[in-house]
Amino acid sequence: MSVTAAKGFTAAGIAAGIKENGNPDLALVVNRGPRRAAAGVFTSNRVKAAPVLWTEQVLRGGEVTAVLLNSGGANACTGPKGFQDTHASAEKAAEVLGHSAGEVAVASTGLIGVLLPMDKLLPGIEQAAAQLSEHGGEKAAIAIKTTDTVHKTAVAQGEGWTVGGMAKGAGMLAPGLATMLVVLTTDADLEAAALDRALRAATRTTFDRVDSDGCMSTNDTVLLLASGASGVTPGEAAFAEAVRTVCDDLARQLIGDAEGASKDIRIEVVGAATEDDAVEVGRSIARNNLLKCAIHGEDPNWGRVLSAIGTTAAAFEPDQLNVAINGVWVCKNGSVGEDRELVDMRFREVRITADLAAGAESAVIWANDLTADYVHENSAYSS
Amino acid sequence: MSVTAAKGFTAAGIAAGIKENGNPDLALVVNRGPRRAAAGVFTSNRVKAAPVLWTEQVLRGGEVTAVLLNSGGANACTGPKGFQDTHASAEKAAEVLGHSAGEVAVASTGLIGVLLPMDKLLPGIEQAAAQLSEHGGEKAAIAIKTTDTVHKTAVAQGEGWTVGGMAKGAGMLAPGLATMLVVLTTDADLEAAALDRALRAATRTTFDRVDSDGCMSTNDTVLLLASGASGVTPGEAAFAEAVRTVCDDLARQLIGDAEGASKDIRIEVVGAATEDDAVEVGRSIARNNLLKCAIHGEDPNWGRVLSAIGTTAAAFEPDQLNVAINGVWVCKNGSVGEDRELVDMRFREVRITADLAAGAESAVIWANDLTADYVHENSAYSS
Repeated sequence: MSVTAAKGFTAAGIAAGIKENGNPDLALVVNRGPRRAAAGVFTSNRVKAAPVLWTEQVLRGGEVTAVLLNSGGANACTGPKGFQDTHASAEKAAEVLGHSAGEVAVASTGLIGVLLPMDKLLPGIEQAAAQLSEHGGEKAAIAIKTTDTVHKTAVAQGEGWTVGGMAKGAGMLAPGLATMLVVLTTDADLEAAALDRALRAATRTTFDRVDSDGCMSTNDTVLLLASGASGVTPGEAAFAEAVRTVCDDLARQLIGDAEGASKDIRIEVVGAATEDDAVEVGRSIARNNLLKCAIHGEDPNWGRVLSAIGTTAAAFEPDQLNVAINGVWVCKNGSVGEDRELVDMRFREVRITADLAAGAESAVIWANDLTADYVHENSAYSS
Repeated sequence: MSVTAAKGFTAAGIAAGIKENGNPDLALVVNRGPRRAAAGVFTSNRVKAAPVLWTEQVLRGGEVTAVLLNSGGANACTGPKGFQDTHASAEKAAEVLGHSAGEVAVASTGLIGVLLPMDKLLPGIEQAAAQLSEHGGEKAAIAIKTTDTVHKTAVAQGEGWTVGGMAKGAGMLAPGLATMLVVLTTDADLEAAALDRALRAATRTTFDRVDSDGCMSTNDTVLLLASGASGVTPGEAAFAEAVRTVCDDLARQLIGDAEGASKDIRIEVVGAATEDDAVEVGRSIARNNLLKCAIHGEDPNWGRVLSAIGTTAAAFEPDQLNVAINGVWVCKNGSVGEDRELVDMRFREVRITADLAAGAESAVIWANDLTADYVHENSAYSS
């Protein structure tokens, strides 16, 4: 599965020694062609890690031969030396693979503000290249984990073509792309521009609507590589749907594995005047710490939902708002609705529906609850 | 001291039975004149509690004779019945005090979405009125507590006049006014317009810059009442400074008693192109859950500060940002600065300085850390 589900790709994942605990920390994904088209979307955080700045440049050419990914260090806020290190990593991969460094994308994840141990990373690239395999997708997915408890892969089959992918991310998940690294591959025969359209459309309603903890990363990267090895050029709609399906699957896996979370919260905003209104309201609900605590405590505290809605600029009248939690309309017309005792919140997934009664647009945002475990994971050590 | 520090005011605080645990829950503050000028500022949440809607109307007249406050129920999201209850409470207080209901401000705090027990509240008003005293300020301050562990009062002395006040608030503290009820009183002889100017100027840089948990309340109310009993009309600057001093003192007390917090975080943004930029950056830092967890863990994780700054639209260049934690410049020019081991974070107050290197403006935002105790307090029961 993973990034080697589609024909024309090899991958590897190894332990280069970047992580002190000896876990896998370096992945390599190589596009064997015949085509080497690529598209990418990146964090909208203005503080961008060195590999993001590098890979944005690489993507301008529309061709990517290889993606080098490391966990164990984000190489963010590392100044000119950090950028030199990313450049040197790409050069090393290009040298080993016999390609141009200008076609090597780089992605890093881990602690911000620490330089990567280049004495371990550079030999690791040689080691990873030696292990490249058409069955290496799982190992690559494992090597990019940080605080993830499981590795994340997904696949969608078209007629004669495939889209597969891997993702990592378990914290700092917020719009403008969740904190994550994602590599998608396809053997469909498509040019960079077509990949770009499909990828942007897919991320807009999947990764961009994941808001685990409101914190936006410096390193978010989603890449889509096409080898053309199937020889099939799918219709634009079918391909877009396959990419969206894989992104949605991976995004749900990110929420399901978020740091310290005990609940996955599906926030659907309906009755909005515009989709932007629906997204704004959904994010405000998703980021309300008091509500996130209440959900953790299995308390259907709809007052906190209304408080969150009230901070937005969306079109609505306070006395027309309706809120359902797990199907029970606990708030009607901005006031007390059905009996909150009817709400069953024992399961991991909690569904909040907020009806703005102002139009016909809607959006879904996924979030997590706020738990003592989240606090522990993010206070007990640097990450 | 509290609301009876200034001449011309009486107050009371009693247990009316609104809270099931029998703690004090009803406060009354009465302006004995000769002047009854007043000003107020309210939550900017669009979902406003019934008492906020009522008191906004009262304030339009510029005169307030009495303030009736209850804890044990916010009377928010309670529909037309909730507004009728607020109105009936004001009518009852007016009847007992021999004034017009149109001069009785009402403020409520507690759980959202629950009607107040009027059968207890209305008799409680009579009881409170019977206990009004020139020494009742402390009891009034105690009666408005919810999850507050201590009651909060402050006072500032002018030349022949006094400003005093009380506040409650321990959660849902965020800009657009922290979740809180505040009543300030003065015996200075000033008209409503002068009070309004002083109050707006004071709250703009005090309560509006407290961001304990990013959650904005439906009930925030700050009132300033002037009795004129001193016979002194202070200069505008001296009076404004006294009001600001009392607001600042109370705002710091709110942060110091925030739910579950173990640290008070003073975030100073300097080198900003505009004050608005400084406030936007300060709030973004204040609301970053990952940073709040790191501070709890006494980890000087400046990368999370940069991540938060990077999500704003403020003027800055990423490679010119500088960050100090407790005086140690751990980030210089967007990269690694002084040794983070030098940062001593053992004390409750933590100072973060973010230098945008883009101008000469600055702002201070106060926040709290994120702790397992915060999660527990806000998930274990409805509040």
